[in-house]
Amino acid sequence: MQLVDQALAGNRRALARLISQVENDGALAAQTLAAIYPRTGRAHVVGVTGSPGTGKSTLVSELAKVYRHAGQTVGIVAVDPTSPFTGGAILGDRIRMRDLAGDSGVFIRSMATRGSLGGLARATAAVVQILDAAGYRVVLIETVGAGQSEVDIARTADTTLVVEAPGLGDEVQALKAGILEIADVLVVNKADREGATNTVRALQAMLDLGAAPRTVAHHGVTLTVGVPNPAGPNPAGPNPTGPNPDSAPAWRPPILQTVALEGKGIAEVVEAIACHQAYLAESGEGATRRRGRIAAELEAILRETLLCRLMQGLAPADIDGMVGRIAARELDPYTAAETLLAPRP
Amino acid sequence: MQLVDQALAGNRRALARLISQVENDGALAAQTLAAIYPRTGRAHVVGVTGSPGTGKSTLVSELAKVYRHAGQTVGIVAVDPTSPFTGGAILGDRIRMRDLAGDSGVFIRSMATRGSLGGLARATAAVVQILDAAGYRVVLIETVGAGQSEVDIARTADTTLVVEAPGLGDEVQALKAGILEIADVLVVNKADREGATNTVRALQAMLDLGAAPRTVAHHGVTLTVGVPNPAGPNPAGPNPTGPNPDSAPAWRPPILQTVALEGKGIAEVVEAIACHQAYLAESGEGATRRRGRIAAELEAILRETLLCRLMQGLAPADIDGMVGRIAARELDPYTAAETLLAPRP
Repeated sequence: MQLVDQALAGNRRALARLISQVENDGALAAQTLAAIYPRTGRAHVVGVTGSPGTGKSTLVSELAKVYRHAGQTVGIVAVDPTSPFTGGAILGDRIRMRDLAGDSGVFIRSMATRGSLGGLARATAAVVQILDAAGYRVVLIETVGAGQSEVDIARTADTTLVVEAPGLGDEVQALKAGILEIADVLVVNKADREGATNTVRALQAMLDLGAAPRTVAHHGVTLTVGVPNPAGPNPAGPNPTGPNPDSAPAWRPPILQTVALEGKGIAEVVEAIACHQAYLAESGEGATRRRGRIAAELEAILRETLLCRLMQGLAPADIDGMVGRIAARELDPYTAAETLLAPRP
Repeated sequence: MQLVDQALAGNRRALARLISQVENDGALAAQTLAAIYPRTGRAHVVGVTGSPGTGKSTLVSELAKVYRHAGQTVGIVAVDPTSPFTGGAILGDRIRMRDLAGDSGVFIRSMATRGSLGGLARATAAVVQILDAAGYRVVLIETVGAGQSEVDIARTADTTLVVEAPGLGDEVQALKAGILEIADVLVVNKADREGATNTVRALQAMLDLGAAPRTVAHHGVTLTVGVPNPAGPNPAGPNPTGPNPDSAPAWRPPILQTVALEGKGIAEVVEAIACHQAYLAESGEGATRRRGRIAAELEAILRETLLCRLMQGLAPADIDGMVGRIAARELDPYTAAETLLAPRP
């Protein structure tokens, strides 16, 4: 575990190597994550998601600059799940690197493959934990928010930003309904473009429609009456209270406007994230989310460990034979699984 | 299994109820899928994926009409993974229903939740198998192609269509690189819009760049020399042979242009799908893909069954206690998993 010690002591090359090893070697991942676990839990993890074309990468880069200006260390995990074969995100990485290169307080990692951890969400969670243990106080996870895995990844964050932009078409509008449910902070980027006010208004309307059921369905917490809305500054319009003020949810996602390319509105986003962090701590919601994440992680570890143990006890020919019989439709996959799971003589 | 018999005999209400039951009851799913398995394998499964705004839904609807005109029965599975809480795709469903409603040869199903099957990809695969067993000869799966799960779902198809449209911005262009690797047929929809020729040209260029590694990396088959390109009509431009004709892959995805809203170019897409189906059969590639799918499905069943058995042997308090200790950082998740997996006295 010399590499772990070096990585946690601030050696950036060791950190990069450790992450690669964890991505590619399941057994080592378990060992490493177990070793660093006591040192995790100090970073505030911010998920940044949204459709292609909303300018997420630029926003993430600008957020990092504001945090750096305030003296905070920043880890960035860029998830590009669309290229399972060649690995994605390399272009995006280079663009970001241009501005942040040479700053030892920033560490950027692209998730190029799923490696051996068996899923992009798990691999991302592992990298976030390593950056957390290595002392990065803010970890930004950037995902393209149009798929189930991206929603899953966003859920692993403490605070989730959903980024929109004006004029992305009707189907994108429809997509919002789902993605809105995971948003803690809404950002309308490219707000200098035509249609920005309409986008903000549409988001307001969707929040009004969905506010109450969202909170109940998503977090399973009892709605608290009388908790002040800590949503922070909302330059988007009049402060909304939702359709039913008597059962107003404790947290209503603020809608902020930015022009990330010009660095406009970024400080307000950082402020909204800080407000949400305070809300998580005060309301107990943070602890609830954390327990949910831990339960899901434990389940994933159990699932993979059990499969791994089973496979170790089987010859590759056993599996191949079964696959052949299923392909020939002599056997269905469920009966085949029962056979493989039956105690061996 | 009376419901199964009714569903397979053509009772649409029974079919809809059976699908809901399978989605929501894991044990019943296993039983049902095992029972219908011998009747599956006859449908040609076509995945249709692409970024939001490309007009996938309209294209799917138009494809269904052409198949119906040719006397084929069509199942449609619309996957909208962006709304994990309220369930998505309802709007899209209504739009499609307008044109296809009342046709007993078409069955449309939206995947609204992940239910108990533990993953959207598995739930989708189960629905496809049921439609296959129920006698639908073409099954179209529509997904939003910007995430890992959607790529996984697309891979369960025999033939994957990737839909693009002109003018969706730079980031979308970058996304293509990954999604291209799973394409068997490329469709540039909204081809009457400005920029269609550029989109086609960009796709050609990406195919030229990626053709050889794609085939090797994705399918793991030896490149066949001298097999005629069965790509079918390609109105996009001169017939390309790739950068290295000596090692040309056996299948090069044709690039077709459509205006789905006006029904233009749809017959050519159906023809390209038929060409690909013939290629799969003749080259043996179809059998290779099928075995890969079966192996993945078997593994998923084993994983879920093992976890389920473990959970049945544990008290909820055991799990809760572990989660609490992990949250308090007294214990790391890996050590906790080992403890839960240890033989009990």
